[in-house]
Amino acid sequence: MNILIKNCNLISMSDKREKIEENIDILIKAGKINMIAKNIEENVDKVIYANGKIVMPGLINTHAHVPMSIFRETLDGYNLQDWLEKKIWPMEDKLNLEDIYYASLLSFIEMIKTGCTTINDMYFMTDEIIKAGLNSGIRLQTTRTLMDIAKDGEIRIKELEELIERYNDKEETITLNIGIHGFYTTNAPYIEKCANLARKYNKIVHIHFCENSKEREDIIKGYSVQSPVELIKKYFKDLHVVLAHSVKLTKEEIKELANENVHISHCPVSNLKLGCGVANISYMLDKGINVSIGTDGQGSGSNLDLFEAMKYTALLQKGILENPKELPAYEVLKMATVNGAKALGLEEKIGAIEENKSADIIIINMDTVTSIPINNVFSQIVYNIKGTNVETTIINGKIVMENRVVKGINESDIYNKCNQIIKRIR
Amino acid sequence: MNILIKNCNLISMSDKREKIEENIDILIKAGKINMIAKNIEENVDKVIYANGKIVMPGLINTHAHVPMSIFRETLDGYNLQDWLEKKIWPMEDKLNLEDIYYASLLSFIEMIKTGCTTINDMYFMTDEIIKAGLNSGIRLQTTRTLMDIAKDGEIRIKELEELIERYNDKEETITLNIGIHGFYTTNAPYIEKCANLARKYNKIVHIHFCENSKEREDIIKGYSVQSPVELIKKYFKDLHVVLAHSVKLTKEEIKELANENVHISHCPVSNLKLGCGVANISYMLDKGINVSIGTDGQGSGSNLDLFEAMKYTALLQKGILENPKELPAYEVLKMATVNGAKALGLEEKIGAIEENKSADIIIINMDTVTSIPINNVFSQIVYNIKGTNVETTIINGKIVMENRVVKGINESDIYNKCNQIIKRIR
Repeated sequence: MNILIKNCNLISMSDKREKIEENIDILIKAGKINMIAKNIEENVDKVIYANGKIVMPGLINTHAHVPMSIFRETLDGYNLQDWLEKKIWPMEDKLNLEDIYYASLLSFIEMIKTGCTTINDMYFMTDEIIKAGLNSGIRLQTTRTLMDIAKDGEIRIKELEELIERYNDKEETITLNIGIHGFYTTNAPYIEKCANLARKYNKIVHIHFCENSKEREDIIKGYSVQSPVELIKKYFKDLHVVLAHSVKLTKEEIKELANENVHISHCPVSNLKLGCGVANISYMLDKGINVSIGTDGQGSGSNLDLFEAMKYTALLQKGILENPKELPAYEVLKMATVNGAKALGLEEKIGAIEENKSADIIIINMDTVTSIPINNVFSQIVYNIKGTNVETTIINGKIVMENRVVKGINESDIYNKCNQIIKRIR
Repeated sequence: MNILIKNCNLISMSDKREKIEENIDILIKAGKINMIAKNIEENVDKVIYANGKIVMPGLINTHAHVPMSIFRETLDGYNLQDWLEKKIWPMEDKLNLEDIYYASLLSFIEMIKTGCTTINDMYFMTDEIIKAGLNSGIRLQTTRTLMDIAKDGEIRIKELEELIERYNDKEETITLNIGIHGFYTTNAPYIEKCANLARKYNKIVHIHFCENSKEREDIIKGYSVQSPVELIKKYFKDLHVVLAHSVKLTKEEIKELANENVHISHCPVSNLKLGCGVANISYMLDKGINVSIGTDGQGSGSNLDLFEAMKYTALLQKGILENPKELPAYEVLKMATVNGAKALGLEEKIGAIEENKSADIIIINMDTVTSIPINNVFSQIVYNIKGTNVETTIINGKIVMENRVVKGINESDIYNKCNQIIKRIR
C-alpha cells in the first residue's frame, strides 16, 4: 500500500535535515520512505492529513522481556531476588505456548498504542513471540535466552541456533540476536560458547550487566576479576554488545567501556523500582558511548511507554547530577530513536525519517491540554507528550494503528485472554 | 443535583473502611457524600454506572503556580536563576488580568482531565485565578504572594487582607492562605508581619523552603542562623505551615521539623528538572511528618498530573535509597489524598470518600492496555494509570467532567486564547 502523509511538522531525527520542518509531505512506497518534500502530488492508496501534528520516527525500546506484560505490578514490597523466587519463577513455570503468544500480543498492542515500533526482547518460547510479532506488525529483535543454571545451556544454544536458521533474513521485521541472561547465571566456558555463536552468525550480543550492587559483586567474585569491564574485554572484544542497565559502573570503568563496541540500554524506571539506582548515562554519553533507552519487562518496568522512559531519562540526570543543563530534550529524542537503531544494528533501516529507510513512523496529536502552548517542541515531546497522544503508528510501511484503533487485532479479546492467564497461574 | 454512582470498586482512602471494596454505590446529595452502601435505591437526578471502574477521592496538589501553564517548556538548558531572570520575569511583566484568567483556566482544565480536584496555588492577580476557579468548579486554595524584593511588601499584605475579607467563608470551594514566596525574597521584619497576618485570620502559611543548595545557603547567611529550621521555629512556631520542596535538609533538621506543625509538599518532577535533587521524604514520613505531593508550576513541573507525580514520588525513594520496599503504593495514594487534605487544613471536608464529606470524586477507567491485568490495584494506580484514564471528575458534588468531556468550558477556545497570549508576550 502506498501512503502519503500530508502537511506534517516533521522531526526526522536525521542529521541531514533541519531538526524541525513545517508543512512537509512524506510518500511511502513498498514499506519504504520514498520521498520527503513539500507539496508531493502522487496517486496513492491512502492519504493521511497531518496538519498541526508531529511526525517522527517510531521509538525504539532496546531492552524488554515481551511476555512479562502479565506480571505487571507483582513487585511492590519485594526485592529482586525474593520477587523472582517467590513470585515470577513459580508463575513462569506454568506458562504454556498460548500464554506466551497472548502475553506478547498484549505488549505489542501497548507498544503500538504508545508509538514504539521496535523492541529488543529477551525471553523464551520465542517462536510464539515471533508469531505475535508478525501478527501485530511490530519490528522485533529477539532471542532464546541463554543461561546455564539449570544445566540446560546446550539445549538453549541449539534452540537459538535453530531459530536463527529458521528466521534469518526471512522476515523484514524479525531479527535474532544472542541474548545471554547475564554473567551471574552462567560461567566462563558457557559464555565462550555464546560468544562463538554470535561470531558464527554475525549477531549482536544482548546481556544484563551491572544492574545492581549484588550482581556487580557476584560477577567480580565469580569470574575472579577486578572489574566487570574485564569480562566484556575478555569475552566480547570483537563483538557488538548491548548491555542492559549498567547502573553500577565507576567512571573509570565507563571510560574503559568507551573503547569497546558496546551499546548501553538505559532502563530508568525499572532501575528505580528495583532499587538499583541511577546509571550515570551523562558520563557515558560524554565519553562517546552509544546510550539508548529500554523499559525492561513490565514486571519491573510497569509499562513499555518510551515517552515516559524518555522523561525519566532526562529528569534523573538533571536531578541526580543537580544540573538542569544535563541532557537537553533533543539528545533524549536521539536516544529513543537513532541511538536505539544503532544499538540494534539497524541504523541503515530505522531510527530516522530519511528517503530509502523503512517507514517506521508515528503521528502525534499535539492538541491536548498538556501540550498547550508549545514553547519548545522537543521539550514538549519529552516532558508532556504521553504515549496516548500517538494517533497513528506505521511500521515497515503498514498502518498498524489509525486514530488510536489498532488494526487487525481485537484488543478486548486479548485483554480477556491475559486476564484469564493470570487468574489461572496465580 | 443528586447523583448515584452504581457498582463501583471503591478505594475510599478512609481508615474507617476496607482499602478496596467491590460493587459499592455512592449517593451524593447537596454536594456531599450522603451514603456509601451496596444496592442503594433512591430517586436521583443522575445515575453513573461504574461497573469495573475504580472510584477514589479526587487528588490534591499541594504546591503550584496556577497561571504558569503558559510557561510550559521554557526551561530546558537554563538554571533556575537564569530562567527566572531571562525568561519568566520579562514575560510575567507583560501579563494582564485576562491572561491570568485564561492561563488559570488552562491549568484547571488540565487538573479536571487528570483527576485532580484541589490545588494549593501561589501567584498574583489572584481575583482572576479565583474567577477561573469558580467558573471551572475546581477546589482552590490560593493567596496573593507575599514578598518584599520590590519594596511593595506592604501593598501585597494589604491586597491579601482584602482578598481574605472578600472571600472568607463566602465560597465553598475557595479558601485563602498566607503565601510567602520564601525567606530569601524578604527579611525578618516582613516575615513577622506575614506571620501576624496568618495569626489574625487563623490561616495556613505556604512558603518555598530549601528548594536547592543555593537557597539553603542564602537563608542561612541572610538570617544568620545555623540551620533553616531555626527560621520555622522562630517565626512560625504556633502556625500551620506548608513547606514546598524541602529538598536540602539534613536528617537532623528533619527530626527537628517533626516537632513543628509543618506539612511538606514534595514536588519530585520540578525538583529533578531544576537540578535541585531529591527530598528524603521516606525519612520525613518515618519521623511522622505529613508529606503530600505537589507538581509546582508547569514552568518547572511541566504539567499538573498528580498520577505522574505519584509515580515519581514512589520510584525516586526506591531508586535513590536503593530499596524496593520504600514507599508502598498505598502510602503514595495517601500522600496524594488524605495527606494533601491535612496539609491544606481541609481534612474534615476532603481527601477521603466518607459520609458527610464533600463529594470530590474521580472515576477511573481500568480497561486500557497498560492496566491489564490487575495484579495489585494500588500499584496499578500509582504506576500504570495516567491522568487520561480518569473518565469522570466530580467536585463539591458537581460533575465537572463526564466521559472525558469538561462541562461548561469550551476547551478549544481556551487553547487558542493561551496560544495567543504566549505569542504576544514571548
